[in-house]
Amino acid sequence: MKKHENQIKQWLKENRARGARLLQILVRENSTRGNESSTQALVIEKCRQLGLALDIWELNGEKLKKHPAYCCDRQSFDGNPNLVAVLKGTGGGKSIILNGHIDVVPVGKESSWEHDPFSGIIECGKLYGRGATDMKGGNVALLMAIESLVANGIKLKGDVIFQSVIEEESGGAGTLAAVLRGYHADGAIIPEPTNLKMFPKQQGSMWFRITVNGKAAHGGTRYEGVSAIEKSLLVIQRLQQLEKDRNANISDPLYEKIPIPIPINIGKITSGEWPSSVPDTAVIEGRMGVSPEETIQSAQLEMENCLHELIKNDVWLQEHPLKLEWFGGRWLPGSLESDHPLMNELTKSFVEVKGAHPVVEASPWGTDGGILSTVGNTPVVVFGPGITETAHDANEHINLEDMFIASEIIALTLLKWCEVDV
Amino acid sequence: MKKHENQIKQWLKENRARGARLLQILVRENSTRGNESSTQALVIEKCRQLGLALDIWELNGEKLKKHPAYCCDRQSFDGNPNLVAVLKGTGGGKSIILNGHIDVVPVGKESSWEHDPFSGIIECGKLYGRGATDMKGGNVALLMAIESLVANGIKLKGDVIFQSVIEEESGGAGTLAAVLRGYHADGAIIPEPTNLKMFPKQQGSMWFRITVNGKAAHGGTRYEGVSAIEKSLLVIQRLQQLEKDRNANISDPLYEKIPIPIPINIGKITSGEWPSSVPDTAVIEGRMGVSPEETIQSAQLEMENCLHELIKNDVWLQEHPLKLEWFGGRWLPGSLESDHPLMNELTKSFVEVKGAHPVVEASPWGTDGGILSTVGNTPVVVFGPGITETAHDANEHINLEDMFIASEIIALTLLKWCEVDV
Repeated sequence: MKKHENQIKQWLKENRARGARLLQILVRENSTRGNESSTQALVIEKCRQLGLALDIWELNGEKLKKHPAYCCDRQSFDGNPNLVAVLKGTGGGKSIILNGHIDVVPVGKESSWEHDPFSGIIECGKLYGRGATDMKGGNVALLMAIESLVANGIKLKGDVIFQSVIEEESGGAGTLAAVLRGYHADGAIIPEPTNLKMFPKQQGSMWFRITVNGKAAHGGTRYEGVSAIEKSLLVIQRLQQLEKDRNANISDPLYEKIPIPIPINIGKITSGEWPSSVPDTAVIEGRMGVSPEETIQSAQLEMENCLHELIKNDVWLQEHPLKLEWFGGRWLPGSLESDHPLMNELTKSFVEVKGAHPVVEASPWGTDGGILSTVGNTPVVVFGPGITETAHDANEHINLEDMFIASEIIALTLLKWCEVDV
Repeated sequence: MKKHENQIKQWLKENRARGARLLQILVRENSTRGNESSTQALVIEKCRQLGLALDIWELNGEKLKKHPAYCCDRQSFDGNPNLVAVLKGTGGGKSIILNGHIDVVPVGKESSWEHDPFSGIIECGKLYGRGATDMKGGNVALLMAIESLVANGIKLKGDVIFQSVIEEESGGAGTLAAVLRGYHADGAIIPEPTNLKMFPKQQGSMWFRITVNGKAAHGGTRYEGVSAIEKSLLVIQRLQQLEKDRNANISDPLYEKIPIPIPINIGKITSGEWPSSVPDTAVIEGRMGVSPEETIQSAQLEMENCLHELIKNDVWLQEHPLKLEWFGGRWLPGSLESDHPLMNELTKSFVEVKGAHPVVEASPWGTDGGILSTVGNTPVVVFGPGITETAHDANEHINLEDMFIASEIIALTLLKWCEVDV
């Protein structure tokens, strides 16, 4: 065992440039929603070179639609496949899913980026670009861990099931498709950007859209109309209060250091089409966090009730009701005991590599861990090298050092979890 | 004189169906910005039939740009001409400009309309459609007034200068072009939708755009970002306070019955592109009213100062300043003495037709009257048949009865102002 550990450590030390280069070429491909294919092709080729058994398929939206956990407004999955690549075990050990998503969020305001958002540029040990942290860096950590086994001819008893899925950023249809295709395991690691923290619990989340109705009028006689923007202010302020109330109820110590454990994020607002008209419609879109201890349904009910409360005090809104929709992305919350064997093995490896205990928290965002654990019955730990704070932000980047550390911790965990066949 | 008055009254009574039909065909043409030509063609043909001297020309943006009152972001005026049509006087009387704009604002949310926005449908004496009130109904009142003279062979001493201009809704480039082409007169009537009130003073107005900067982040760790929407709320609330403060200072009795004499209308807000990201930019657009007693410049300064005050109390905004732009439309305020001879003549005609005194107020919105009076040195009264409350709104409509009343009052005023050549 010690021999294999040393082989892995040595190989990872010698192949850092190789890992950085792989991340660079993945980041240089734009894999926003609907554009995943070119990046996925690079991952597929990597897995082929590693000799993994490849399963490449396009999602069947019609079929997936029938599953209650499916939540997706994507019109077509054509041309942008899911990938599962298996390092088959010799038999007898525990299996593990290593799951990473290949899709990235849009770049936002380009002028806020110091470099091209898809530059993959490396400066002072940091690699920059959309997806570097969320989560192509995590994916490379997984691929390097697998390669360290293959390169050293280490055979495991249990299967290592690598998954490169689409659609995580929009609700997890890619992982759901993999689960429904039959992939499950004795455990799973998802290397989302956790700053190397371990998240046995994951916050769920879902998207909402609130349509607010006003009454148009000329801006010069705006008192003859009702501004959908002014009414939206009331809605947003009420949601801010709801966020405060919901978070005041969170007592789980895993959330102790998180300023807002289950945030309500107002992500978009659009209203009006003419500066001197009173706007008659406003559309607010956002994301509501769901605690690991509650269900999607109970959280939805809380927002519905809160909007009902608001309407009670507003004659206009009584007569022109708000429309609340749950659309697009939805991520089930996930929850694993902090002393689950997978947590123990991962923690041991962490201590071995870092010489210190990991920080254990609950994730501040939804991941595919919800679907993997709830629908796929697979125990999940979310643990990865990316920098939480730069995810979805301009100048997203990752510390390459952390990527190699995560890779080593995961590789050592594979040795213990799946067992070496000597 | 009495004979001519009776001829006009009789003719207008007999030709109501003709007037309603003219308005109907004008409303059925969509004349939103850039699409004015087909409606203008109908007006030109009408003026040709009336035997007026036609001056039809396309605006020269390059040339107009040099004038300080020009305020327009339109790329091209090609194909959508201005029209001035003159009923030449025999000499010696006072001249008058009858000015109406042919452009209309966009329809807004189509589902709020009971009929097609360009139906021109007539129900219970009301004609419906975008532009019916603002201000094709006013234009028809002018054309019917002129036709009542022509049809009865009445010759006036002074010129009647009918203007059908583009761009009023976007800042008055059409009327500015007419002024710079040399058209001015001893007086002018603009039949904007005043509910038959007389407006010797007109509120000026201008458009503003405020760009608010935030910091993007993942919605699940929204505390790592700064929401441009949350900062926009502060801006909007501050503008609401500014509106209160500015209106508290208005003491002109002409504004006595207007709930908000010089409103600040927030017409548009756009922020964010992803429900689960913290939005890093928000753009607010609106319209600021300018009192007849102040200048565009002093009003702009008040808003600039108010935003500076806001920034003082917000560290983020200090480091990430708001960007304030004055863009697109700008309408100069206008002011005429309430006892100006044109007001007196118009009032006499009003009393004769309606048997009561007109309501005299200051207009709650900018009109081309500002340019006509300030740049064109022409005394202006804004007085027209449209319904203020339905302008720019869904289900815009006009009471046809009021259109005929306005036509009669204006026609009788022409007899007195321009004098009949007997």
